[in-house]
Amino acid sequence: MNVKPLGDRVVIKRLEAEEKTKSGIVLPGQAKEQPQMAEIVAVGPGGVVDGKEITMEVKVGDVVIFSKYAGTEIKYEGEEYTILSQRDILAIVG
Amino acid sequence: MNVKPLGDRVVIKRLEAEEKTKSGIVLPGQAKEQPQMAEIVAVGPGGVVDGKEITMEVKVGDVVIFSKYAGTEIKYEGEEYTILSQRDILAIVG
Amino acid sequence: MNVKPLGDRVVIKRLEAEEKTKSGIVLPGQAKEQPQMAEIVAVGPGGVVDGKEITMEVKVGDVVIFSKYAGTEIKYEGEEYTILSQRDILAIVG
Amino acid sequence: MNVKPLGDRVVIKRLEAEEKTKSGIVLPGQAKEQPQMAEIVAVGPGGVVDGKEITMEVKVGDVVIFSKYAGTEIKYEGEEYTILSQRDILAIVG
Amino acid sequence: MNVKPLGDRVVIKRLEAEEKTKSGIVLPGQAKEQPQMAEIVAVGPGGVVDGKEITMEVKVGDVVIFSKYAGTEIKYEGEEYTILSQRDILAIVG
Amino acid sequence: MNVKPLGDRVVIKRLEAEEKTKSGIVLPGQAKEQPQMAEIVAVGPGGVVDGKEITMEVKVGDVVIFSKYAGTEIKYEGEEYTILSQRDILAIVG
Amino acid sequence: MNVKPLGDRVVIKRLEAEEKTKSGIVLPGQAKEQPQMAEIVAVGPGGVVDGKEITMEVKVGDVVIFSKYAGTEIKYEGEEYTILSQRDILAIVG
Repeated sequence: MNVKPLGDRVVIKRLEAEEKTKSGIVLPGQAKEQPQMAEIVAVGPGGVVDGKEITMEVKVGDVVIFSKYAGTEIKYEGEEYTILSQRDILAIVG
Repeated sequence: MNVKPLGDRVVIKRLEAEEKTKSGIVLPGQAKEQPQMAEIVAVGPGGVVDGKEITMEVKVGDVVIFSKYAGTEIKYEGEEYTILSQRDILAIVG
Repeated sequence: MNVKPLGDRVVIKRLEAEEKTKSGIVLPGQAKEQPQMAEIVAVGPGGVVDGKEITMEVKVGDVVIFSKYAGTEIKYEGEEYTILSQRDILAIVG
Repeated sequence: MNVKPLGDRVVIKRLEAEEKTKSGIVLPGQAKEQPQMAEIVAVGPGGVVDGKEITMEVKVGDVVIFSKYAGTEIKYEGEEYTILSQRDILAIVG
Repeated sequence: MNVKPLGDRVVIKRLEAEEKTKSGIVLPGQAKEQPQMAEIVAVGPGGVVDGKEITMEVKVGDVVIFSKYAGTEIKYEGEEYTILSQRDILAIVG
Repeated sequence: MNVKPLGDRVVIKRLEAEEKTKSGIVLPGQAKEQPQMAEIVAVGPGGVVDGKEITMEVKVGDVVIFSKYAGTEIKYEGEEYTILSQRDILAIVG
Repeated sequence: MNVKPLGDRVVIKRLEAEEKTKSGIVLPGQAKEQPQMAEIVAVGPGGVVDGKEITMEVKVGDVVIFSKYAGTEIKYEGEEYTILSQRDILAIVG
């Protein structure tokens, strides 16, 4: 993906039910009730963000749970993505 | 559990009345009036969170009291959990 | 009491009128108009809380005045308590 | 007075019109229009409050002007007092 | 004036139209449209305020422009004054 | 462009559908649905902003995605631009 | 101008259409649509403001773009000015 997030931001793609992720995880049917899961598609460099040193702890391909109301939705080459700060990533799955 | 919280976050499972916890504590009937008790099922690594060094003081299996309105509810493999920051854990019980 | 507050938190029991505290203080009748008095029943360890070093200055048995709207009410073994941060304790009485 | 404020807090007694203070100042009639004047009756120890070193600059007996909406009103032995932070004391009079 | 402001606070007297200030400046008629001008009548000692070292840059007699909605109005010996923080003084005139 | 942003600010020009950017990227038709893309036309010097050292990470000609509600719209020589802080730039495209 | 701003504040005069500035720039007719342009008429000394070292980067005569809703409007010797913090100056023009 040709989008490079700045600072501690990441680009995620929300996962739909039964979707197969790049890392091979198949999300089962009940995933339809999990709109807060996503796959990381791009990761910012981290560094000093708002005066604080941030280390990136997620990587491209990670399936994550994120804060439902966080981030900015964008459309890029016909697909929808969300850009959000790593601090809005709650956990890594799998 | 295959969910790894980031930073100072923990995953908790709310405890229902008369439920037996992993550590063997049996919550008595009046627990129905205690919706703020939960068992810790996963613990983040701590470290520098928002520019401050955080040491994790809870561990998997702890029964805790937490801030009622804190955290994000998630559904994972058919079960409901809450992900919240350790700072929203008020006390350890037992 | 088998509840261990985290960080700078304390567990308090609100004092009713003419109630005798553990430390022997008898609160007189007009105490009915003092819903902000309580006895400390458990004290957290203090330490670094939100990036600041906190020393606990209250101890179990202290009768205190606290901010009316602070804290979280809990029910534990049939009794009602409040968990709040030491910064919401205004003064020690007696 | 048997109330020991914590941190940078002080206990004040609001002054009514023509009331004689401990330090001998007689507040004249128009004081009725000065509900923001009070006498300090107890002073906390200061020290590190919310991560900042605070030196107490008021003492028992000082007549002060304070922020009208600051503090918590308490009743103690039949009398009304206000507990507030020294930062809500605007000036010392006399 | 017998009022000693604490910290970075100052006491000001709002200037009415065509009023002569202590330092001799005569405010012309259109001053009626300048309710934000005042004369400094008392200055706090400065020092560490809210964890930051503050140097006082105004002195008694200065005519200043201040933030209209800042500060606390007080009545003292029949006269009205405003107590506000030096940070709410925008500029010195003259 | 003869506008020099201060501190960590940048001037951007929002990109319309099928517009050709200075760096040669042609934004395809669906860009009409991407009102959050813009080209950087001027970049501030960075440095200490609000007490924090800021390094500028975008340069003139970069196509960026920015927070939709951030910044101030200005009109300059008949053209519309937006001035916003680099922290409101989410990602660089291309 | 006989107004000395404190700290990081500046005094600006909003520019009307086709007005000639002190530095000789003539603002063309469409300036009527640019209510956010102004000329700097006085500059504070900078220094430590709110605990942070501020260097002034604008000077008297600069034409600037500023945040529309920032600052305090004052009337001085029959003319209208705005006093605002340098951080509300977005860019220098020309």
